[in-house]
Amino acid sequence: MRGLGATGGVGLAYGAMSTLGLAPAAGASTSAARFQAPAMGDLIGKAPGNRSVVVLGGGPAGLCAAYELGKAGYKVTVLEARARPGGRVYSVRGGTSETEIGGETQTCTFAQGHFYNLGATRIPQSHITLDYCRELGVEIQAFGNQNANTLVNYNSNTLVSGQSVQYRAAKADTFGYMSELLQKATSMGALDTVLSSDDKEALSSFLSDFGDLSSDGRYVGSSRRGYSAEPGAGLNFGTETQPFAMSDVIRSGLGRNFSFEFGYDQAMMMMTPVGGMDRIYYAFRDKIGTDKIKFGAEVTSMTNVSDGVTVAYTQDGSKKSITADYCICTVPPNLVGRFENNLPSDVRTALTAAIPVSSGKLGIEYTRRWWETEDHIYGGASNTDKDISQIMFPYDHYGSDRGVVVGYYSTGKRHLGFESLTHKQRLAKAVAEGIAVHGDKYGRDIASSFSGSWRRMKYSEGAWMSWQGAGDSHGGAATPEYELLLKPVERIYFAGDHLSNAIAWQHGAFTSARDVVTALHQRVSAA
Amino acid sequence: MRGLGATGGVGLAYGAMSTLGLAPAAGASTSAARFQAPAMGDLIGKAPGNRSVVVLGGGPAGLCAAYELGKAGYKVTVLEARARPGGRVYSVRGGTSETEIGGETQTCTFAQGHFYNLGATRIPQSHITLDYCRELGVEIQAFGNQNANTLVNYNSNTLVSGQSVQYRAAKADTFGYMSELLQKATSMGALDTVLSSDDKEALSSFLSDFGDLSSDGRYVGSSRRGYSAEPGAGLNFGTETQPFAMSDVIRSGLGRNFSFEFGYDQAMMMMTPVGGMDRIYYAFRDKIGTDKIKFGAEVTSMTNVSDGVTVAYTQDGSKKSITADYCICTVPPNLVGRFENNLPSDVRTALTAAIPVSSGKLGIEYTRRWWETEDHIYGGASNTDKDISQIMFPYDHYGSDRGVVVGYYSTGKRHLGFESLTHKQRLAKAVAEGIAVHGDKYGRDIASSFSGSWRRMKYSEGAWMSWQGAGDSHGGAATPEYELLLKPVERIYFAGDHLSNAIAWQHGAFTSARDVVTALHQRVSAA
Repeated sequence: MRGLGATGGVGLAYGAMSTLGLAPAAGASTSAARFQAPAMGDLIGKAPGNRSVVVLGGGPAGLCAAYELGKAGYKVTVLEARARPGGRVYSVRGGTSETEIGGETQTCTFAQGHFYNLGATRIPQSHITLDYCRELGVEIQAFGNQNANTLVNYNSNTLVSGQSVQYRAAKADTFGYMSELLQKATSMGALDTVLSSDDKEALSSFLSDFGDLSSDGRYVGSSRRGYSAEPGAGLNFGTETQPFAMSDVIRSGLGRNFSFEFGYDQAMMMMTPVGGMDRIYYAFRDKIGTDKIKFGAEVTSMTNVSDGVTVAYTQDGSKKSITADYCICTVPPNLVGRFENNLPSDVRTALTAAIPVSSGKLGIEYTRRWWETEDHIYGGASNTDKDISQIMFPYDHYGSDRGVVVGYYSTGKRHLGFESLTHKQRLAKAVAEGIAVHGDKYGRDIASSFSGSWRRMKYSEGAWMSWQGAGDSHGGAATPEYELLLKPVERIYFAGDHLSNAIAWQHGAFTSARDVVTALHQRVSAA
Repeated sequence: MRGLGATGGVGLAYGAMSTLGLAPAAGASTSAARFQAPAMGDLIGKAPGNRSVVVLGGGPAGLCAAYELGKAGYKVTVLEARARPGGRVYSVRGGTSETEIGGETQTCTFAQGHFYNLGATRIPQSHITLDYCRELGVEIQAFGNQNANTLVNYNSNTLVSGQSVQYRAAKADTFGYMSELLQKATSMGALDTVLSSDDKEALSSFLSDFGDLSSDGRYVGSSRRGYSAEPGAGLNFGTETQPFAMSDVIRSGLGRNFSFEFGYDQAMMMMTPVGGMDRIYYAFRDKIGTDKIKFGAEVTSMTNVSDGVTVAYTQDGSKKSITADYCICTVPPNLVGRFENNLPSDVRTALTAAIPVSSGKLGIEYTRRWWETEDHIYGGASNTDKDISQIMFPYDHYGSDRGVVVGYYSTGKRHLGFESLTHKQRLAKAVAEGIAVHGDKYGRDIASSFSGSWRRMKYSEGAWMSWQGAGDSHGGAATPEYELLLKPVERIYFAGDHLSNAIAWQHGAFTSARDVVTALHQRVSAA
């Protein structure tokens, strides 16, 4: 059962809370002890002395913290600058309106029921996010994160350059030639120092299947590539497509994105809520209680006072303030310095080590699902080395008469090609690049569109954070700044995905919030 | 756009019908001409002279034929022996009752809304089946046909023998060592006769990413394998699992099933109707009209007469008969000889060349979705070399309090281990083997179960057909018998997936039915 060890993460976090009375004793079975979804009915402990907590930010970290604290009996107030919950979890649908910083106002006109997720869009099976969906009653469905019929299109110094190739064909050719080469090397004895004859026999058998090799160990094409004419009945055996030449396959880098599909947090199955990722945050809002969340509340100062934290904010044009026993600040680190605070200078400096990443998406509403009827694509993404990076196909409304395609989801340098443009320019560039991948139909039957660049979105000003000196990974890193921000500043705690090893994932925000709730409760209980 | 060539199959079949007035002229765009979903409103031609057709069998081939003929104005009658439409498309749910030949009667007690598909369960994106879903208004969803968190468990003469290993770990180790070996062979110059230095450089870059190799070209494990403790917030970086040894990975055959995932008709995305595959056939029934389908009608004879076909049958204990201008016989070839007929002897002999395959499934209803809460599995299948072959996890009711797992879907020799057993014995064997793969929890929280072996199912007596002399493939083959049965016998036509190159797929039945409808209409039009 060794393989199952990978699934115990959530239990650890919750196990820690269990020692504080925030969770039930372990159930009858060991497996139940190893994993326990968070659940309303589980609470057996309460906050001593009716303590109050003000939570800054109504995104994943803030709402998770408020929810868990509420379950434990804390008096919680959430201040959220936007009119909606979810933060960077943002499902764009008809009526959504957004004014980018220094830019125009867009108002979305997608047909009823259609949307795309401008922020978080998919959930790995091991993330605690799915446990919250279960607990909150948020219905989930499969998210297409891999598709043999989507296309790759890369420029190279080969005959394949600029051609759109189905993933299935790119894989068949790459795996075929890779298997042929290893078969050849093995059979000529080149690897005899590391492979026994038993190894070689077993490897040869695997390669023959993996690469669909001919009996003499060569790759000469495969039905896995697909057909130019689909097999049907009778004597219609279909017409297989022909493989590219070995050198073209290798030098064109057709396989450059294959590892995405077996990355830890991207491998199928991936899940997503029915109706948009923001459904999770509307569910949190309802469970927490709308009376405890102040929308449109812009923080103007956050001050540690003698036995609490005072937060001033404006709401509906009025200046207001609140003092609570503790504060959990989930405001993006790049924006904390924007409001008055009495944080020590090392903490202020540490916050600036979190560098906002440039990323964004464009949703294109088509009145014809050409990707299904013509390209036989039901979800998943095409990939390219053009600035659009990828074209993501909808995971909902299959077989219907319209749908929203994500025309780009690009990050970093490639997103700079879009970030500074007007929406109209973004659409034009995305459509031009999309036509190069999917053909002229990509430019037809467009009903509407909506785009967003996270560095230009008020209250976020970044898609996610990259830690200075820690490279460009989606994981945290124990830099001095990161470690400093894990500690409370008197009665102020920081939380958010940027303080986790799952940056840009809701799981990171939730586990950070749960760690902070646990630490806060421990402190209160020990006092 | 070379890769897109693979998607044109459906258009070819329909294009043929177009010349007969069964479909509209090509639309404005070339792509529309290449692919056109079948659609009610498309009809521009009618059957000359109000011709009648009797269709034997209300499965995919029979109902598709009746539906298409009805659209063209033919007077159609379907005779179906069972009380339900769909044939080997059979969604088992609460209330389903079945008596196996020579066996006991089972009545299913699954909770409301729960089911499993005892027959066809998934649809590839290129199959015409999805076009019928679109036309009939059958809602579809993603089917999990691949999952990094499901398990493989195989016996071997290695340290991995009998261990359950997550697919993600099996892949990471296999791809890792495969890449390391090819990297080594390449760098020592073993492949210099076939690889240029440019090839080698590009290959090395690919292998490094594909195998997650260290900077010195070795595979030493990867986060892709997964974690024994999930990464969380703060300094919880998670604990990666450790790779197996190279020789164990190779000799244990952990990768023996990888090619399934990129096979032409099994690669993700795969789709399925919401609520069970049989939804398609209830939709066909409603479109055709229940007055045109006689359920419980067992054919007793099929006779070519001078200017038509007479079919005798029993229904509700009464002997009845019908004479029509033509007959389309979709009765499984192994059962045609059971009723009286005046088919020529070569045709009778040809029918016996279709050999029924043994296959079946067992559905287990659990009152706890342990595969989600403990194993983090949302759809997909675990694989093993035990008789159960695979354990398939539900693609519906995610996050709820119960679900139906397919405890085995085995075929051929491995199914013989179940076919002759009582249901109770099947369940006991399946649970014992399932425990060896997923642990003791596999044996707990079982509410009910239901099994079926297709060779013991009345009116089918086989899961699908294998053609004598054509091997064990799911494609047809131009054997003399196969070719003979493609031709009508006077006014009797044969149709079914067994007469296609997509045996055991609904696509095969539909394309066969459409070919026969086209041929019949052509004949009538030319007369």
